[in-house]
Amino acid sequence: MVAQFTVNTRGQGLHEITREIATRVEEADVREGLCTVYLQHTSASLIIQENADPAVCRDLEAWLNRLVQEDDPRYTHTTEGPDDMPAHIKGALTSNALSIPVVQGRLALGTWQGIFLWEHRHRGSGRRIVMHVSG
Amino acid sequence: MVAQFTVNTRGQGLHEITREIATRVEEADVREGLCTVYLQHTSASLIIQENADPAVCRDLEAWLNRLVQEDDPRYTHTTEGPDDMPAHIKGALTSNALSIPVVQGRLALGTWQGIFLWEHRHRGSGRRIVMHVSG
Amino acid sequence: MVAQFTVNTRGQGLHEITREIATRVEEADVREGLCTVYLQHTSASLIIQENADPAVCRDLEAWLNRLVQEDDPRYTHTTEGPDDMPAHIKGALTSNALSIPVVQGRLALGTWQGIFLWEHRHRGSGRRIVMHVSG
Repeated sequence: MVAQFTVNTRGQGLHEITREIATRVEEADVREGLCTVYLQHTSASLIIQENADPAVCRDLEAWLNRLVQEDDPRYTHTTEGPDDMPAHIKGALTSNALSIPVVQGRLALGTWQGIFLWEHRHRGSGRRIVMHVSG
Repeated sequence: MVAQFTVNTRGQGLHEITREIATRVEEADVREGLCTVYLQHTSASLIIQENADPAVCRDLEAWLNRLVQEDDPRYTHTTEGPDDMPAHIKGALTSNALSIPVVQGRLALGTWQGIFLWEHRHRGSGRRIVMHVSG
Repeated sequence: MVAQFTVNTRGQGLHEITREIATRVEEADVREGLCTVYLQHTSASLIIQENADPAVCRDLEAWLNRLVQEDDPRYTHTTEGPDDMPAHIKGALTSNALSIPVVQGRLALGTWQGIFLWEHRHRGSGRRIVMHVSG
């Protein structure tokens, strides 16, 4: 099963998309298999993180913003704005694809795990996702 | 084939689990396929690293501990202890899933590659792994 | 389908291998499926990055070189040269495997996405890749 859809981000930060993914996996009607979630962009990421305490995602976002500074005069790729090169670096330090087993018809997420689309640009936009479920 | 098992870590650091994974792949009796190893936690990671010189893993651990400091007063997620937020950040910088092709019935690991469960908390615990092998 | 081949890197930096991967996927003649690209080394990485403006890859490389310094006296794994331990750290911060869905017989890459082999050693060498395409 292949599904393609767009997530509209509302600005920099982690946007939970667990439900959007889980629903499509259940529709695929696969007993045991593998779900791959793929993001067709390089200035945003896909990540599995804790979805119990929202402070985890806020602290994570703040930490990465301190590591990957904007307005670094050594960047030469500057035509798309001061947040674009940092967004590519953040994308490189994380990932644009997730692999999650499907067990008994459902994503084998841990108790506290959620799936997030991490927008690295200040301004949100439509982010295209391709899902593949085998089984 | 899906397999689920728990690895008991003995504290912060990289714990090699190559044998635990390789044995289950051989039992799956797949000639050519794909092995996915998935960790159901966000304060530990799965990683492929060199398993020839143990100093590589020690230096890697020490480097990441310098990058992601504990006791940073800017963390707001502090209720689970001073090593919890750093553990989530380390998890985000690495990965919780591995994809390894199976060729001629075995994991296609490189000569010096080993599979490690990287515990980011000071205190070890039971870490649940879900494996999927297709073929 | 499994394919194994070697990419000869010409020194530190990102080497685009989109064509090498895409050609083999088209030869696999799979309508819908999953392509996994696996690197059998821990001192180089595989990464999806923007392939429109070459300055993105140069800035990314320069940024990571500032983060992961050579000649750090705290490294104890030094027998393979001053660039070896930094190469392992860079490998750990990125990834050695990529998962890309195949849709309508082609890799589902985004418009500006390219596949790169990122050599972290100063001296290039033959880097072995294992590809798996299911469908």
